[in-house]
Amino acid sequence: MPMNRPAPQDVRSITCIGGGVIGAGWAAGFLAKGYDVVVQDINAEAEGQMRRIIDSAWISLEVMGLAEGASRDRVRFTTDLDDAVSNADFVQESGPERVDIKQDMYAAMDAAMPNDVVIASSTSGLLMSHIQAKSGNPSRMVLGHPFNPPYLMPLVEVVGGKQTDDSAVDWACDFYRVAGKHALKMDREVLGHIADRLQQAMWNEIVYMVDADEATPEQIDDSIIYGFGPRLAIMGYCLLFHLAGGQGGMRHFLKHFDPSVSDDWTRLPSPPITDELVEKFAAGAVRLQGDRSVEELQQLRDEALVGFLQHFNKVNGKGAA
Amino acid sequence: MPMNRPAPQDVRSITCIGGGVIGAGWAAGFLAKGYDVVVQDINAEAEGQMRRIIDSAWISLEVMGLAEGASRDRVRFTTDLDDAVSNADFVQESGPERVDIKQDMYAAMDAAMPNDVVIASSTSGLLMSHIQAKSGNPSRMVLGHPFNPPYLMPLVEVVGGKQTDDSAVDWACDFYRVAGKHALKMDREVLGHIADRLQQAMWNEIVYMVDADEATPEQIDDSIIYGFGPRLAIMGYCLLFHLAGGQGGMRHFLKHFDPSVSDDWTRLPSPPITDELVEKFAAGAVRLQGDRSVEELQQLRDEALVGFLQHFNKVNGKGAA
Repeated sequence: MPMNRPAPQDVRSITCIGGGVIGAGWAAGFLAKGYDVVVQDINAEAEGQMRRIIDSAWISLEVMGLAEGASRDRVRFTTDLDDAVSNADFVQESGPERVDIKQDMYAAMDAAMPNDVVIASSTSGLLMSHIQAKSGNPSRMVLGHPFNPPYLMPLVEVVGGKQTDDSAVDWACDFYRVAGKHALKMDREVLGHIADRLQQAMWNEIVYMVDADEATPEQIDDSIIYGFGPRLAIMGYCLLFHLAGGQGGMRHFLKHFDPSVSDDWTRLPSPPITDELVEKFAAGAVRLQGDRSVEELQQLRDEALVGFLQHFNKVNGKGAA
Repeated sequence: MPMNRPAPQDVRSITCIGGGVIGAGWAAGFLAKGYDVVVQDINAEAEGQMRRIIDSAWISLEVMGLAEGASRDRVRFTTDLDDAVSNADFVQESGPERVDIKQDMYAAMDAAMPNDVVIASSTSGLLMSHIQAKSGNPSRMVLGHPFNPPYLMPLVEVVGGKQTDDSAVDWACDFYRVAGKHALKMDREVLGHIADRLQQAMWNEIVYMVDADEATPEQIDDSIIYGFGPRLAIMGYCLLFHLAGGQGGMRHFLKHFDPSVSDDWTRLPSPPITDELVEKFAAGAVRLQGDRSVEELQQLRDEALVGFLQHFNKVNGKGAA
């Protein structure tokens, strides 16, 4: 039974463990939403760095719009873990990416905290099932993986470990939504979660191409910025390729697109396109499409692209090479 | 010696081979820049489809801004290949993706055209070295691969085949730039070129994840749209990971990022990170960074992201799920 766990909308005080780019980035985002924030780092020198990161982020957060009462003055720094977590309504942990360090840290936090306050880990490369292994009350520990910079990007990937209670996962999703994030609830744990797996596949192909002198880093980046990048700010590949299939949609796209051709385009061979797999994609594409026609979606894509490209032309020559 | 090849800025009449999504998309973009355009397709019924694609694209092209004198009335349709190409200043071919069909088509165009007018192929999956194999004057044939939708996206990947003259590649790059595109000159032919190889690696990882029930199509798309997608509209991975390396930049990032960890994040294993490879990336990152500090670039990234996210919030609930 949950005890001492506030309702997601009643969270007032948040503790961020770690004063680095991710921890301080989380802190900046929470401050902008009007929360009180405690940042803990075992290194006292992290306080200066944390304040610089928050100050830098604040420029963008003011443009995005601050919540009523939001202030950079509402952050407190401490090196003491017990002090940091004992009164927290929620803990976002962004410590070092080593499972032994995290296991000890979670056991210590667990011992210092009311029973059921949720603790979320920003980890990219570890599983919650491993992190929670040494704690007395692992049921309230979840993965809450943000996307850099965490004060701007909406995505938070949420999933529990083997010992996590479903109620903690649902609570975390609800809380992140209250805090203005896009909570993506995963069905199962997988190393690298979702977004980083996709990025890693692309990055590995990039490394192969540069290694083989097939492309330079500048050519790689140009192909992204001037090519598929702007599209991916609007729609993901499943909906985009559903549109590429025309009126036949994703089912037509998967059957038409001969894997034996595309296998030559990457070092990662495609899995067999079974009928069962086609149906999984086709059903997902239908859900993504909703009640919109292919023409409506194409027009929507183009309208959004025009807006992005106009903005891009303004920043171009600065961000883009 | 080039004969009958106009200077890139003197091109007036362009022939687009193929009246499908790509061919008609090219035609729309060229019309918006004020060119006369001939569209050829062996299927007479393609004319109606071509005009619908141009009409749909025109809505966005008007917002982006038309060149003086630009008009949809300046397109002519024909089923006759000789008629289509005989007076062209430039040919953009977007026919079927079959090497035997393209070889015959290029030989026929070659015979009907003045010696040195450049012919560019939109092919995604074939190499120009194969396409040009049956032509008498292959030296003026290049790859000019666009990104969908070709009337909006700036990217055109340009490279010659084995028999292509360097002057044709340079001419094509110059012409595309005059026509408002971002010409990305490649150093060598590779199947899938650059952007599609990167997309294919990511798509294959997506297919594996859906197959293994690690993620649904909706979860995949959410992870892109709310996560790394918006970033890729601003900077490519090489510059982004250079920033992720902090003051140590790309060199620190590559050495710090243990490949044995990341190999578990994708089915595509990473290549060995040799010192030589680190230097290739580090030199490229330095060129991408130019004379800007890491802090300047981070601030620029955030400023651009704020603009994109504000636009995204407007289209959200329509494009995004």
